[in-house]
Amino acid sequence: MIVVMELAARAEQIGAVQQKLVQAGYVMQAVKGARGLIIGAAGKGGIDHQALAAMPGVDRVVPVRQPYKLVSRDLGGETSLVKVKDLVIGGRDLTVIAGPCAVESWEQLLDTAQQVSRAGAVVLRGGAFKPRSSPYSFQGLEVKGLELLAAVGALTGLLTITEVVDEASLELALTYVDLVQIGSRNMQNFRLLQAVGRSGKPVLLKRGFAATVEEWLLAAEYIVASGNENVVLCERGIRTFEIATRNTLDLSAVALVKKRSHLPVMVDPSHATGDRDLVGPMARAAVAAGADGLIVEVHPDPGRALCDGAQSLTPEAFVALMQELQPVAAAVGRAVGGGGAL
Amino acid sequence: MIVVMELAARAEQIGAVQQKLVQAGYVMQAVKGARGLIIGAAGKGGIDHQALAAMPGVDRVVPVRQPYKLVSRDLGGETSLVKVKDLVIGGRDLTVIAGPCAVESWEQLLDTAQQVSRAGAVVLRGGAFKPRSSPYSFQGLEVKGLELLAAVGALTGLLTITEVVDEASLELALTYVDLVQIGSRNMQNFRLLQAVGRSGKPVLLKRGFAATVEEWLLAAEYIVASGNENVVLCERGIRTFEIATRNTLDLSAVALVKKRSHLPVMVDPSHATGDRDLVGPMARAAVAAGADGLIVEVHPDPGRALCDGAQSLTPEAFVALMQELQPVAAAVGRAVGGGGAL
Amino acid sequence: MIVVMELAARAEQIGAVQQKLVQAGYVMQAVKGARGLIIGAAGKGGIDHQALAAMPGVDRVVPVRQPYKLVSRDLGGETSLVKVKDLVIGGRDLTVIAGPCAVESWEQLLDTAQQVSRAGAVVLRGGAFKPRSSPYSFQGLEVKGLELLAAVGALTGLLTITEVVDEASLELALTYVDLVQIGSRNMQNFRLLQAVGRSGKPVLLKRGFAATVEEWLLAAEYIVASGNENVVLCERGIRTFEIATRNTLDLSAVALVKKRSHLPVMVDPSHATGDRDLVGPMARAAVAAGADGLIVEVHPDPGRALCDGAQSLTPEAFVALMQELQPVAAAVGRAVGGGGAL
Amino acid sequence: MIVVMELAARAEQIGAVQQKLVQAGYVMQAVKGARGLIIGAAGKGGIDHQALAAMPGVDRVVPVRQPYKLVSRDLGGETSLVKVKDLVIGGRDLTVIAGPCAVESWEQLLDTAQQVSRAGAVVLRGGAFKPRSSPYSFQGLEVKGLELLAAVGALTGLLTITEVVDEASLELALTYVDLVQIGSRNMQNFRLLQAVGRSGKPVLLKRGFAATVEEWLLAAEYIVASGNENVVLCERGIRTFEIATRNTLDLSAVALVKKRSHLPVMVDPSHATGDRDLVGPMARAAVAAGADGLIVEVHPDPGRALCDGAQSLTPEAFVALMQELQPVAAAVGRAVGGGGAL
Repeated sequence: MIVVMELAARAEQIGAVQQKLVQAGYVMQAVKGARGLIIGAAGKGGIDHQALAAMPGVDRVVPVRQPYKLVSRDLGGETSLVKVKDLVIGGRDLTVIAGPCAVESWEQLLDTAQQVSRAGAVVLRGGAFKPRSSPYSFQGLEVKGLELLAAVGALTGLLTITEVVDEASLELALTYVDLVQIGSRNMQNFRLLQAVGRSGKPVLLKRGFAATVEEWLLAAEYIVASGNENVVLCERGIRTFEIATRNTLDLSAVALVKKRSHLPVMVDPSHATGDRDLVGPMARAAVAAGADGLIVEVHPDPGRALCDGAQSLTPEAFVALMQELQPVAAAVGRAVGGGGAL
Repeated sequence: MIVVMELAARAEQIGAVQQKLVQAGYVMQAVKGARGLIIGAAGKGGIDHQALAAMPGVDRVVPVRQPYKLVSRDLGGETSLVKVKDLVIGGRDLTVIAGPCAVESWEQLLDTAQQVSRAGAVVLRGGAFKPRSSPYSFQGLEVKGLELLAAVGALTGLLTITEVVDEASLELALTYVDLVQIGSRNMQNFRLLQAVGRSGKPVLLKRGFAATVEEWLLAAEYIVASGNENVVLCERGIRTFEIATRNTLDLSAVALVKKRSHLPVMVDPSHATGDRDLVGPMARAAVAAGADGLIVEVHPDPGRALCDGAQSLTPEAFVALMQELQPVAAAVGRAVGGGGAL
Repeated sequence: MIVVMELAARAEQIGAVQQKLVQAGYVMQAVKGARGLIIGAAGKGGIDHQALAAMPGVDRVVPVRQPYKLVSRDLGGETSLVKVKDLVIGGRDLTVIAGPCAVESWEQLLDTAQQVSRAGAVVLRGGAFKPRSSPYSFQGLEVKGLELLAAVGALTGLLTITEVVDEASLELALTYVDLVQIGSRNMQNFRLLQAVGRSGKPVLLKRGFAATVEEWLLAAEYIVASGNENVVLCERGIRTFEIATRNTLDLSAVALVKKRSHLPVMVDPSHATGDRDLVGPMARAAVAAGADGLIVEVHPDPGRALCDGAQSLTPEAFVALMQELQPVAAAVGRAVGGGGAL
Repeated sequence: MIVVMELAARAEQIGAVQQKLVQAGYVMQAVKGARGLIIGAAGKGGIDHQALAAMPGVDRVVPVRQPYKLVSRDLGGETSLVKVKDLVIGGRDLTVIAGPCAVESWEQLLDTAQQVSRAGAVVLRGGAFKPRSSPYSFQGLEVKGLELLAAVGALTGLLTITEVVDEASLELALTYVDLVQIGSRNMQNFRLLQAVGRSGKPVLLKRGFAATVEEWLLAAEYIVASGNENVVLCERGIRTFEIATRNTLDLSAVALVKKRSHLPVMVDPSHATGDRDLVGPMARAAVAAGADGLIVEVHPDPGRALCDGAQSLTPEAFVALMQELQPVAAAVGRAVGGGGAL
């Protein structure tokens, strides 16, 4: 269940509610939102909801059968808006994040940034810490990559996002970028989730490539329960028996997340397909399915990219994609090409 | 490789080409199309393509590295058009097939047919032979179901489609319906593929729920090589670890099929998701991804459906879906709501 | 539930029970076994088991929560014994089936048969009708293959098994071989299951490569409910994300089937792994897990096999395997190397 | 490729080899083993192996086509022996690790430890830091759990193992336990792999539940390349479409790892199946397949376990399992029940 406390609830009122829940065998996680404290509670039931709702300081009690509570849509209302400076994710305007898989150099990043910015992207992506399957693969420029990202962001007016892989890289990223990303392989790195939760930084939480939607929402619950409501989900393809595409993009998960959770959800058609010819159709499909945004790999010279060249769009192809997306976005009551206010 | 013979090629010229291929160790499958005989040939290579192209009666030789030949897009050109009476599948107009999972009664079928027809569906679906996992489940009305389907089709002007499960049911279906369907469980029932191939009847070939795109196209190759070019593919979800949806709709497979094959491809969002709330978003996404049509389950009273009620739309919801689809179709240069000529 | 009728139950007594079940909304399937008629019934419940058990001619009523009934172990007792001439499958002695993927020639088959027979195999396998993904692949010798199989079986004293792919091939196989096999791709070809059921012929039912254990047992239920109790299951690997092996051998399914069903279960380590180096370890593991037998591909010259050479053992390697298996079989209270009486 | 340096190779000789490799575009990882430095090198090839082998200080050069180098079996020889105090993992004697999923209390742990020790287990497992899908689930006793584990280990003479989930928990664990475990969800937490690598502590590396064998061996390569050769692999089931078991135990991966890598490999039949009835058959199968050991969950009162009760054996069932395993181990030339010297 979720217990929504009144904004004016006093500490001892909150304490009384929590004591009541503990006595009934519930485990709690809470987040202090703009509209007051929200307590998620999981247990074997048996508590009297009406009595609980009648306690001083309690606004209302919402039953939630799902194992996740704070991120569930049972609380009602619209998709939550995640604000990053002037950007609002989850509103009418779709958010498009673009950039190279890895930050490689000043020229590569600036060139890409200027072109994706002109085409309507509002956030620049670029990996500085790359989790690679092999220790022999390029591992990222690390701090140097963060510096380039921050500088290019400042120069172009783009917001910036980068993946963090542990607490040390998170600590660094906090000072350089506007959003952090938790990658697919770390979706159940619960310590990292909690650290990102404590940081309060807006975060893009990618779905683990073998995670169920339920596990994904529980991972988001870890972040929110650690104090950070600024969570944006991102579907990026799951691992199946099909090897003709790098992963299998699960767009029904996007629709399902919209039904089950109030968090905004984006789609990464680049990692999902691993094939630039499929990025356009899947980006269009994602928007039609109701996604709140896209994250797309763009590289000025994909053939020489240090990682994931096969799935990277050229800047020209990205411009064309953005134009294709506009009528599709309009068809579902959304807009693309600016990330402005609601 | 594919050897395209001239329309005027004489039998002995065809024979000479085939002999040459056999001598070089190739295995052949051929289909006689409107523009002449097309020979698909698979082997370990070594034959001189130029010499082959120079043989009398040969129009051209097209190298095809994929294991499927006749269905491959390497032959170039647009998506093939499959004609069913006045209906054209694969052109600008999207084809929408709708109807109940199973034919249950005259009233159920007629009611559904009239409503989906008014909303813009052009083909009526209804199962008469139901392949069910359990022998204790409803197995379909069989011939009685076919009779109802034919009668309701005639009355409403809708074309009709039903699933066939063996040669006997195919034999029956040929006289009652306009298209036959090969279901997911029979996608590699090669004897049935060949029988449908010999029949020449337009066929909707559903992807096996655990079939790769390559295996799916090879299944289509079996049909075409048996003499039937009227093949329409249909993605209906694959089996993965995710159980929150009935299957995982693989829309990247639609884009991939468009890249690799000239056959039209449709999408079944009902079986894919198993959840009527997700049918709309996935139908929109399918259209945006480039699908040539949709097959949607509609039942006048889903709560009492003899099969798959949870995923069936009410007629009212279907009307709303068709209206939602129009701007999405327009956004990708297509139209929906009529299945007319190109 | 399962209703076990007394051996001496009269037709009208059986009729009365069936009428009672129908009135209560149950769907029935029945098989006439050596110990009397057994009725499987599926429904929403509500019938009084005690009243049912008290009806004349009823021996006992066994509740079965699983969707399969006749094949469930809830009836109690040991693993069923399937008898094929002098061979008993499911008893203390493990049954080893060996032979080439496809029957290719008299010499190939006879050579293989003599060697596997000396090593302790009791059934000779050999495909005459090959379900191949591609129409360009070798499709089997068909009737000629059956003739060779029957002749070599007669000459060597080995029993014979071959795969059937439709009713026509089944019809032919019935007169030539001792067991028929339903392959992975046809596990849910329900018409074929029913035809094999009507034939009464001992059958090896391979698990579909993407079938759950429940679906597999329901497929067996189709056969038994059609009148054929002589069903032997065979695990042959499932399709997963792992591509280092051809399939993923699911040995826990063997243990699970033993827990849930009374049918004997064998294992095919050759198709499961696709790698002859892994056949030995997986054959040993299968025996240790409780399998009732093995089906192993053996070819006198694997490098020249018309199909599946990479996974075929040489006759010498098969001899070594049989020797390795003996102590493992003994360790779990079984014997290998003869297929004799219980 | 792998370059094996002579034990007596001098620093400048090593430097010259590394320089040569860098100039040729190779990326290197090296580990200092008992028999000298071993350099793994990955690149696009082109270097002259003979010239390299002729350089001063080089013992030999071994080509390795796999992406992992240092853990590959191409170096030849037997399975590596991992020594933990008096225990040798990878030799003739199988290593059995047993204990509860989570450390819950002194009584629970001591009771379990005494009983599994008497039955032949040599390492006590017990989770102190539990990575749980839900933030509402029991997360482990943390330091208190480590203290209990160390104390019970000292009292019973059992070695101890616990899972680490980040660098902080690793730091703590190093002082309390004899082996650390990297769990399935952290198999690609590369920072943690490197930290464990630097620690030199013997480590049990569980396979990610959706990791290919190749990715698993690359994860091991990260640890070895960070300086720690004491890596033991552990198969614990993969995620597939089958939900009748918790995971699908992939025993062919055990045989494949034995073929491809020199590292010892163990099996966890408890997490793999999630069903105590299947633990015995799968443990026997694992031993027959060639596993070097087992890790089994045992709880004195599975019905009250704070996690994973359904898959935990009672101490009595564990005693029976150990007895069953002995003849199976003997059948494949191994022994069980003591973890003594080679």
